[in-house]
Amino acid sequence: LNSGMFVHVRHMLHDMPASDVALILESSPPKTREVLWQLIEHNQAGSILEELGEELKDSFIMNMSPERVAKATAGMDTDDLAYVLRSLPDSIYQQVLQSMSSQDRLRVEHALSYPEDTAGSIMNNDTVTIRPDVTIDVILRYLRSRGSLPEATDTLYVVDRKDAFLGGIALSDLLTCDPNLSVKAVMNLDLEGIPVMMEDTDVAQLFERHDWISAPVISDNGKLLGRITIDDVVDIIREDAEHSMMGMAGMEDDADTFGPVLKSSFRRSMWLIINLFSAFLAASVSNMFEGTIEEFATLAILMTIVPSMGGVAGNQTLALVIRGIALGHIGKSNSRWLIGKELAIGFLNGVFWAAIVFGSVWMWRGDILLASLIAGAMLINMTVAGLSGAVIPIVLKKFNIDPALAGGMLLTTVTDVIGLFSFLGLATLFLMQ
Amino acid sequence: LNSGMFVHVRHMLHDMPASDVALILESSPPKTREVLWQLIEHNQAGSILEELGEELKDSFIMNMSPERVAKATAGMDTDDLAYVLRSLPDSIYQQVLQSMSSQDRLRVEHALSYPEDTAGSIMNNDTVTIRPDVTIDVILRYLRSRGSLPEATDTLYVVDRKDAFLGGIALSDLLTCDPNLSVKAVMNLDLEGIPVMMEDTDVAQLFERHDWISAPVISDNGKLLGRITIDDVVDIIREDAEHSMMGMAGMEDDADTFGPVLKSSFRRSMWLIINLFSAFLAASVSNMFEGTIEEFATLAILMTIVPSMGGVAGNQTLALVIRGIALGHIGKSNSRWLIGKELAIGFLNGVFWAAIVFGSVWMWRGDILLASLIAGAMLINMTVAGLSGAVIPIVLKKFNIDPALAGGMLLTTVTDVIGLFSFLGLATLFLMQ
Repeated sequence: LNSGMFVHVRHMLHDMPASDVALILESSPPKTREVLWQLIEHNQAGSILEELGEELKDSFIMNMSPERVAKATAGMDTDDLAYVLRSLPDSIYQQVLQSMSSQDRLRVEHALSYPEDTAGSIMNNDTVTIRPDVTIDVILRYLRSRGSLPEATDTLYVVDRKDAFLGGIALSDLLTCDPNLSVKAVMNLDLEGIPVMMEDTDVAQLFERHDWISAPVISDNGKLLGRITIDDVVDIIREDAEHSMMGMAGMEDDADTFGPVLKSSFRRSMWLIINLFSAFLAASVSNMFEGTIEEFATLAILMTIVPSMGGVAGNQTLALVIRGIALGHIGKSNSRWLIGKELAIGFLNGVFWAAIVFGSVWMWRGDILLASLIAGAMLINMTVAGLSGAVIPIVLKKFNIDPALAGGMLLTTVTDVIGLFSFLGLATLFLMQ
Repeated sequence: LNSGMFVHVRHMLHDMPASDVALILESSPPKTREVLWQLIEHNQAGSILEELGEELKDSFIMNMSPERVAKATAGMDTDDLAYVLRSLPDSIYQQVLQSMSSQDRLRVEHALSYPEDTAGSIMNNDTVTIRPDVTIDVILRYLRSRGSLPEATDTLYVVDRKDAFLGGIALSDLLTCDPNLSVKAVMNLDLEGIPVMMEDTDVAQLFERHDWISAPVISDNGKLLGRITIDDVVDIIREDAEHSMMGMAGMEDDADTFGPVLKSSFRRSMWLIINLFSAFLAASVSNMFEGTIEEFATLAILMTIVPSMGGVAGNQTLALVIRGIALGHIGKSNSRWLIGKELAIGFLNGVFWAAIVFGSVWMWRGDILLASLIAGAMLINMTVAGLSGAVIPIVLKKFNIDPALAGGMLLTTVTDVIGLFSFLGLATLFLMQ
């Protein structure tokens, strides 16, 4: 970008929808990002921030003055605003709150009073409520005088004088029903209210299962508190799924693809240090059999095959079970059955691959005893892999540890250690007499 | 389940929403599933099928008579119906089509004419269209006489006499605007039509970026063909994300958590056979250095550490790049920058972990030359891992090969081979003189 282009780019950015500007920022290297961010108009900044990934959003906000943050966030939805504030350091956070209009402050303090990852934290308070005892015609006239509805409004909620949630009327029903009927006669009583403390992943599952576009959020005593809209749910679904995928590879799910080198390499080191321990643990297993390896170098050449196959088979089971947990398919009643099934698959896999590896090694090294040893180790390790691929995530989940993050490393450690131990152990038993 | 319970369970299933019945079926072992499926009323079967995962849905449909399939699917949305039919074997497929009412057949044949994974294949044709030259009041009266609107309708589409797409009016605007205005005056002209051949993942990205609830689908010459709704888009987002996660672990994304043992173990074998080749390739690298290993058994004990660290580091980069590709963040303009960045991180990681492993091995084995050799190999392999973690998915994508499925195995092969080769190669150079 040369300096003559700046004006042109500024105009271009100004004319683009916020989501497209966000996409450009996400896809640019750090330096380009900073230049582009400088060119963005103050009143556009808020809606662009809303669309950015977590890591990038945080890094921009850290470098803004509290006043500018307050200004940029003035038009945001309550839930998004609360989300941004949560990620700020305490000192800046207080300053931003102070710089806000008192109405915005009240709104956001209310949202912040709910714990992160609950229905309350992703809820908006822009619900349009109506009373049960008026006619549809009155509602239609009220809406016309109101002039516009909040985004993603598909249902008006019916509450009594004390804000207790009674039901809802879909906009499409308002348009198609007889205007002389009362709200009470038309409203949908089956509409479920979401408890404000429900976990956001459970909320997402409800939305998916019922094809909702928005849903009311209610307090313990049945009062309407706000609503959750499908766009926030889509973000949760995307984040959860990414979390599983990135977690299994040992990455945080908000990692920024185009973030700076040093920061990125620091963030990845946690996983590598755990893996180093795991690798040294495996090495110390081999070390127990140093004498055997010294005598039979062929063992060293073949000893990586069994752990490798166990790792892949175990990871297949792990991925399946982690997805099952995330989708809510796995609970107390069926986890024992599932573990049994995966154990059976592991054993079957073990028999099959033991036969294949027996044939391959016999052909390659022409040693039937060696081929039998590796086949035996394969059978043991594949069975263990199937079992632990199912048991590890289920047990981790029971202790409230995230299986996507901790499961892969634990599993690989198990299959490496058991794989090496069974192969070298069998070899020591049968070769060293 | 004893036989006295059957009637009770049948009633329970009948009273439940289809999505909850589907969840129960998904979470049950094969035998329980069959029994439950027998208890489900014929007229409920269609809506339950719609909610099931691919593998399970197929297995139920395979066992139904064509007439029952036709009956069960009579009430389905066009796109879901087309989806079900696509997965049937040709013979059953023709029979099901024959058993359908001619209207349903026409509808579904039209949907089937679009290739899978395009906007056309997920489109419904239940759009409500209006003309531009009438007043809002006429529309309101038309809707009231119509009586109800299709699910997830948030916008009516405006078309001319030849079905050319002109724009849309949101239901909320219909409710709040002056009824004396004409459709032309109120309608939103900025509404984008989705080209019917657009890839479904691109459609999902548009929905996410613009927070759409439904969007019109148009033909090449601008005619309105139908609409896509957010519920189908949510399924695509979920499937794509699962595909990346399951693919990286070598599983198909429609694998059924509670499917039968033999089928499951067969479906996983593809990945294991590729891994066996990869493991033998790594073994044959070690085999090249048999002489060196025979002389120094310590090498065998340490030789798994370098490939293991390279594998983890490479997989971190791979996961990041695969997610970036899926989100549309990575294109021609920035892929070179990204590869450079990951190479730099790989090198930095290499220097850091070389130092750590140097210290650890020196302490453990007390051999400074051995420690230097493994450190050198670590530096080489971590740099290669960073580079290939970025290059492999980008190149695969260029050749239209799915990076989530093929990337992980290719990467592990590279890091295993380079890891062993560099460590044992350096050892042969410096130890065998």
